[in-house]
Amino acid sequence: MPGEMDKPLISHHLVDSNYSLAEVPSEAPKVGILGSGDFAHSLATRLVGSGFCVLVGSRNPKRTAGLFPAAAQVTSQEEAVACPEVILVAMFREHYSSLCSLRDQLTGKILVDVSNPTEQEHLQYHQSNAEYLASLFPTSTVVKAFNVISAWTMQSGPRDGNRQVPICSNHPEAKHTISLMARSMGFTPVDMGSLASAREVEAMPLRLLPDWKVPALLALGLFVFFYAYNFTRDVLQPYVQENKNKFYKLPVSVVNTSLPCVAFVLLSLVYLPGVLAAALQLQRGTKYRRFPDWLDHWLQHRKQIGLLSFFCAALHVLYSLCLPLRRSHRYDLVNLAVKQVLANNSHLWVEEEVWRMEIYISLGLLAFGTLSLLAVTSLPSIANSLNWKEFSFVQSTLGFVALVLSTLHTLTYGWTRAFEESRYKFYLPPTFTLTLLVPCTIILAKALFFLPCFSRRLSKIRRGWEKDGDVKFTLPASQALAQKTSHV
Amino acid sequence: MPGEMDKPLISHHLVDSNYSLAEVPSEAPKVGILGSGDFAHSLATRLVGSGFCVLVGSRNPKRTAGLFPAAAQVTSQEEAVACPEVILVAMFREHYSSLCSLRDQLTGKILVDVSNPTEQEHLQYHQSNAEYLASLFPTSTVVKAFNVISAWTMQSGPRDGNRQVPICSNHPEAKHTISLMARSMGFTPVDMGSLASAREVEAMPLRLLPDWKVPALLALGLFVFFYAYNFTRDVLQPYVQENKNKFYKLPVSVVNTSLPCVAFVLLSLVYLPGVLAAALQLQRGTKYRRFPDWLDHWLQHRKQIGLLSFFCAALHVLYSLCLPLRRSHRYDLVNLAVKQVLANNSHLWVEEEVWRMEIYISLGLLAFGTLSLLAVTSLPSIANSLNWKEFSFVQSTLGFVALVLSTLHTLTYGWTRAFEESRYKFYLPPTFTLTLLVPCTIILAKALFFLPCFSRRLSKIRRGWEKDGDVKFTLPASQALAQKTSHV
Amino acid sequence: MPGEMDKPLISHHLVDSNYSLAEVPSEAPKVGILGSGDFAHSLATRLVGSGFCVLVGSRNPKRTAGLFPAAAQVTSQEEAVACPEVILVAMFREHYSSLCSLRDQLTGKILVDVSNPTEQEHLQYHQSNAEYLASLFPTSTVVKAFNVISAWTMQSGPRDGNRQVPICSNHPEAKHTISLMARSMGFTPVDMGSLASAREVEAMPLRLLPDWKVPALLALGLFVFFYAYNFTRDVLQPYVQENKNKFYKLPVSVVNTSLPCVAFVLLSLVYLPGVLAAALQLQRGTKYRRFPDWLDHWLQHRKQIGLLSFFCAALHVLYSLCLPLRRSHRYDLVNLAVKQVLANNSHLWVEEEVWRMEIYISLGLLAFGTLSLLAVTSLPSIANSLNWKEFSFVQSTLGFVALVLSTLHTLTYGWTRAFEESRYKFYLPPTFTLTLLVPCTIILAKALFFLPCFSRRLSKIRRGWEKDGDVKFTLPASQALAQKTSHV
Repeated sequence: MPGEMDKPLISHHLVDSNYSLAEVPSEAPKVGILGSGDFAHSLATRLVGSGFCVLVGSRNPKRTAGLFPAAAQVTSQEEAVACPEVILVAMFREHYSSLCSLRDQLTGKILVDVSNPTEQEHLQYHQSNAEYLASLFPTSTVVKAFNVISAWTMQSGPRDGNRQVPICSNHPEAKHTISLMARSMGFTPVDMGSLASAREVEAMPLRLLPDWKVPALLALGLFVFFYAYNFTRDVLQPYVQENKNKFYKLPVSVVNTSLPCVAFVLLSLVYLPGVLAAALQLQRGTKYRRFPDWLDHWLQHRKQIGLLSFFCAALHVLYSLCLPLRRSHRYDLVNLAVKQVLANNSHLWVEEEVWRMEIYISLGLLAFGTLSLLAVTSLPSIANSLNWKEFSFVQSTLGFVALVLSTLHTLTYGWTRAFEESRYKFYLPPTFTLTLLVPCTIILAKALFFLPCFSRRLSKIRRGWEKDGDVKFTLPASQALAQKTSHV
Repeated sequence: MPGEMDKPLISHHLVDSNYSLAEVPSEAPKVGILGSGDFAHSLATRLVGSGFCVLVGSRNPKRTAGLFPAAAQVTSQEEAVACPEVILVAMFREHYSSLCSLRDQLTGKILVDVSNPTEQEHLQYHQSNAEYLASLFPTSTVVKAFNVISAWTMQSGPRDGNRQVPICSNHPEAKHTISLMARSMGFTPVDMGSLASAREVEAMPLRLLPDWKVPALLALGLFVFFYAYNFTRDVLQPYVQENKNKFYKLPVSVVNTSLPCVAFVLLSLVYLPGVLAAALQLQRGTKYRRFPDWLDHWLQHRKQIGLLSFFCAALHVLYSLCLPLRRSHRYDLVNLAVKQVLANNSHLWVEEEVWRMEIYISLGLLAFGTLSLLAVTSLPSIANSLNWKEFSFVQSTLGFVALVLSTLHTLTYGWTRAFEESRYKFYLPPTFTLTLLVPCTIILAKALFFLPCFSRRLSKIRRGWEKDGDVKFTLPASQALAQKTSHV
Repeated sequence: MPGEMDKPLISHHLVDSNYSLAEVPSEAPKVGILGSGDFAHSLATRLVGSGFCVLVGSRNPKRTAGLFPAAAQVTSQEEAVACPEVILVAMFREHYSSLCSLRDQLTGKILVDVSNPTEQEHLQYHQSNAEYLASLFPTSTVVKAFNVISAWTMQSGPRDGNRQVPICSNHPEAKHTISLMARSMGFTPVDMGSLASAREVEAMPLRLLPDWKVPALLALGLFVFFYAYNFTRDVLQPYVQENKNKFYKLPVSVVNTSLPCVAFVLLSLVYLPGVLAAALQLQRGTKYRRFPDWLDHWLQHRKQIGLLSFFCAALHVLYSLCLPLRRSHRYDLVNLAVKQVLANNSHLWVEEEVWRMEIYISLGLLAFGTLSLLAVTSLPSIANSLNWKEFSFVQSTLGFVALVLSTLHTLTYGWTRAFEESRYKFYLPPTFTLTLLVPCTIILAKALFFLPCFSRRLSKIRRGWEKDGDVKFTLPASQALAQKTSHV
C-alpha cells in the first residue's frame, strides 16, 4: 500500500464513537494554541474561520483574551492542552522550556512547531527549533509546519489554494493529520520527510532568491565590463585623441550599446551548457555518468539566466526607441539638414545604410518577439499547462530561433565594420565582435549535432545505449532525464 | 484532534460492507440531481466524467432525457433521490417548495444548494437561498457549494486544478464530503464556515472587481484633474493670451503630460500609508491598537493602486515613444532646420538641454524597468512562489527604489523650470511641482525612520514591545502582522 | 454517498491492525517499482523523498543498485512485488510480457502503467499500453498514471502543487489510492474515467499545442495575404508604373502595414462567432439546439485567436515605434528640410494632417492598452481569481471596447483616402478598407441586438424560453451555458 493515503484520518475509537454521518451531529474539532503573540493570534483567526474549535493557552488569560477573536477560547495553558489532540506551539525558542511542566499532559499528542529562528539564531544553534522541541517532549509527536506563512497571510487566508506549506515529522500519521489541517485551512501541504529536514524548512523564510544570486551577479558583471569597454571606445577615445566632448553619451547611448551585449551573451550562456552536455555524452558514450557539478548547476540556472537576458533585451528595446526623443538627436538632424543646404546637396540617400538599418531593426524585433514568448511560457501558471513536448518546443526550439535571430541582428548591425580599421579605437575591436564568439560556436555545434553520424549516436545514448554496455530497459526519450540538457 | 481531517470519510457501516480493497469491485458512487436546466446538465456531464453514477430527477423525464449525457439516468424525482446520499438541487428558489413532497425521502441526506440569486433577488430576500432550503428541509443536511462555477466551466472542467469552490454548511462532515467531491471533480474546495456564510457565498458571483473600484475611481479622478490642469496651462493659456491655436495637443501631448502625473501620485500613494502606519505606531508606542478604518482599507488596496500606477506609467512610456511619430514633430523639426538656415546658424547645440534630456530619459526607463519587476511579482502564480522575505524585498525595497527613481526622473524633467517666472501660466505652477509634494515627504520620512532613535524604537514595537507594558511572547518580526505595513 | 470521497482510504483490516494514532509507530508505506531506466530512477527518488518505502525490482539487482537512491531497496523482481500493494511498471511495452511469470504474485494488486508510447508506437498499436498490460494481468487492477510527467519533473518535484496528473482505471478505489499517492508526491490528480481513456491519456504527451494549430495557421495565412497585397501596392506598383525603387520597404514598412491588418482581422474574428451564435439563437427561437460544429470549434478557439491578435498588435506597436529610428526616415526628413529651403517656404504646417495623426496615434494606444488588459486576464492564474461576471466583463465588454477603438483607429488612419482615386494602385483599394468589413458588421449587429425587440427575445431565450415550448426550470443567466457565446 503506498504513501500517506493509507493512514486512517483519526484514531480508530473516534470513528466508532463520534461520527456516524447524519446521525450524531459532531462538534467542531479542537486545536490548542500555546502563545499569545501575533502569529498565535493569526493562527487562531484562521482556524476559527476554517471551522475549528480553538483553545488558546496563556499564562495571563484575562489580559490576553481581548486580542483574540471572540470564538477562540482563551484559557490557562493547562486547560488549553487538556482536550485537543493537536497543539500548535507559537512561542519563541527561549520559552520552550517553560512548557516542561505540561509534559505529562502533552504525552501522545501532536505538537506543531510553527516558529522561525531569526538569521542570527539560525547560525547560532545547530539544532532546529523543532528538533529542540522534540528533545524536550520525547513522549509527544513533533511536526514542523506553517512557519513559511507570514502572520498576515495566515490571518487573511491564502488568496488562492496554491500557497505551499512544507511539513516534516518523524511520524507519518501526524504529518498526514497536519497535512489535512493545512489543506482545510486553504494551503497546499508539501511533504518534506523526517524532522531532520526541520532545519532546512526553518531556513526557507530566511532565503532571499537564492536561484537568482549567481545569474544576477553574472549579468551585473557583464554590464560593468561592457559599459567600461564602450565608455573607453565611444567617449574616452574621442576625448583623448580628437578632443571631442561626448560625455553626454553616458546616460543613454553607452548604456544602450552595453545592454544588448549583456542580453546576447546571457542568451548564448543559456544554450551553451546544453551543447557542452551533449558533447560530454558523445565523448563518454553514455548518459549514466553524472555531469561535473559546475555543469549541473549551470544547467539548473538556465531559466534565471534566460529571464535576465530577456529583461536586458527589453530595456535595450526601450532605450533604442527613446533615441529619437533625445535633444541630441534633434540637434544632429537639424545640423545635418543645414549642412546639406550649405553643401548644396538637394538629395541625401545612401542605399546601403538604409538597407542595413531596415534589416537589423526587423531582425531585432523578431528576436525580441520570440524571446517574449519564451518569457511568457516561463510563468509558472503557463508552464504548468504545457506538456513536456510543448515546453521543450517553446524553450528549446523557439529559444534557438531567438538565438539565431539575435546573431543575425548583431551581424547586420555590424555589417562590414569589423573589417574597417577606423573602427578599432585604441586598437579595441568593435563591441559586437566580442559578443559573437559564443553564439556562433553554439550554432556551429548544433549544426554539427544534426549530422547523421552524431545525431544517431546521441539519440541512441539518450535512449539508454552505452558504448561499453548493453541497452537498458528505459522509457522513451520524451521522458528521459537526459533531455534536461535541452531546455531552458 | 484538529480540523476536518478527523472526520470519517463515510459512515462506518459502509466501510465494513462495501469496500474491501481489491476484493469486492465497488459500484461507482451515486449522486442525485434535481432540476433540468443548463446547470443541472453541466453538473451531470462533469460528474459522469469524474466517475460518478448520476441520477437526474425530472418532472417530465421523457422530455428531459435527450438533453443529458447518455450515462446519466433521467428518471422521476422520487427515484432520483431514493438511493444517493448526496442530492444536488439545481433549481430556481421559487421552485424549492415544489420539492416538499420529497421531504421524508430526503431525511438524513445531504442537499447541496448550487443556485445563484439574481442581483434583484439578492436584494429582495434577506435569507440566502441555501438557508431557505434548510428551513424547508429541517431533517436534511444543507450544504452551499458550486454556485461560483459557471455552467460552462462546470461542463468542460477546470483547465487547472486551481479553481476555487467556496463551501459552507453547519455540518462539518457534510462539508467534508462535498469538499472531497469538489476535489475529485477537479476543483479546490475552500471552507467558508457555517451556513450563515451562504449569503456571502451567493453574493460572490454578483461581485464586479470590488477591490478595484476605489483605486480605479481615484486614478480616473486624478487623470481628469491633471488633464484639466494641463489643458488650461498648455492649450487655453496660449489661445487666450497669445492667440495661438494649440488644440492639436489634446489627443496626445496633454494626455502624455497628465499620465505620468497620475502614475507618480498613485505610486506615492502606495507608500504613504506605510509611513503613516509607522508614524502612528511610533506615537502610540504599541502595535496592538488597531489602525483607523480608512488607513486599514488603504493598506489593503496598495496592490491595486500600485498596478494602476504601473498601467499609467506603461501608457506614458508608449505615448512618449510615439511623440516622434507625429506629423507635428516632423513639421517642427523641418521648420527649425529652415529657421537655422535662414538665420545662418550652422551649428545648433545646447549642452544643458542635451544633458537634461539624456538623464531624465535614462532615469525614467530605469524607474519603469523596476516597476515592471514589481508588476510581474504581483502575478498570483509568481507571488505564490516567493517567501515573505523575498516578496517584501521586491515589493518594499524595489518599490521604494522605483519611487526614488521616479522622483529623480521628475526632478530632472523639471530642472530649473519651477524657478522661471515664464513657466507660471495663468499663475499656475508647472504640473510636475504639484506631484512632487507627497513623494518627497515619503522619502524624507523614510530617511527619518532610518535614524537610530526611531528605527530602534520601531523595531522594538514591531517585536511586541509596548510603551506602557511588558514584552509579550511573540514570534520573530519576519512573521509579524505589523509588517503588513511595509509591503505593497 | 457521492464520489471518490466515500472510499475507505485503505482496506479495513489495516485500519484495525496497524494505525492507532500515537500508539504503534507505523512503518512507511511500501511501493514496488519494476524497471531500471530513467523514469524508474526518478520515480524512486521522488517516492523516497515523499516518505515511501521503495522496492525496485530488477533482473540484475547488483548492476542496477548503483543508479538508485540509497534509501531505495534494489532487489529481484519477485521480492519487489511480494509485499507492496502498489506496483509501478516503468518498462517498455515490449517487455511487459516478460513479467508474466509474476502473474500470481501480482494478483489483487494495483499495477500502475506509467509508460508513454512513441509517436510511431501510438499509431501502430490500437490498444493503449495500459489496456495491453490489463489484458496480460486480468487478476490485477491496472491504473494509468504519471505518464505526463517528465523524468526531470518527477525527480526534482513539481515547483508548485499545481502539476496535473491524469489518472484512469476501471476500479474507482484503485484510482483513488493512486490519486492520494500523486497528491502526496506533490501533484494534482485529475480523474479521467475508465481505462478506456488510457489511449487518450497516453496521447497527451505527444500533443503539440493542438489548440493553437488552426489559429496560428490562420494568422500566418492572413499575414502572407496582406504582405503580398501590400507588396504589390507599395513596392511593385511604384517600380512598374513609376520606375521607383522602394524595395528597401520590405523588411520594416511592408511588415508594419501588414501586421495591424492581421491583428485587426483576428480581433474581429474573436467577436464574429458570438454574433453568429446570437443570430442563430434568435432565428431558431431556442438555445437548446446545438450549434453547427464549425461554429462550436470557432467559439472554443477565441482565446487563442485573441492572443495572436494581441501578439500581432504588440509587434505592430514596436515596428511603428521603430520607424523614426530608420536611416530612411532621417534622410526623408533632411531632404524635406532642404526642399523647403530651396522652395523658400519658411513655415510648413498642414493642420488636417497634424490632427489626423494625433488622433489615430492616441486611439491606437488606447486600443492597445485595452487589449493588454485582455491578454493579462487570460493568464491562467489571473483568470482563476476572477468570477464569471468579472471575467465576462473584461473579455466581453472591454474586448468590444478594444474592437471599437481599433475600428476608430483604422478609420482615422484611413481618413478620406478610400475616396481618393490616386490611392487605388493597380485598381487595388487601400489595405485598411479591406479590414474594415467584418468589424463594422459586428459593431452594427451588436447595436442591433441592443434594440429592445431583439435584446428582450434574446435574454428570454438565454433564460430557457423556447419559441415552440414552455419555460424550463433553469438557473439564472449568469450561470447559463448560452453565455459561452459572449466571452473570448
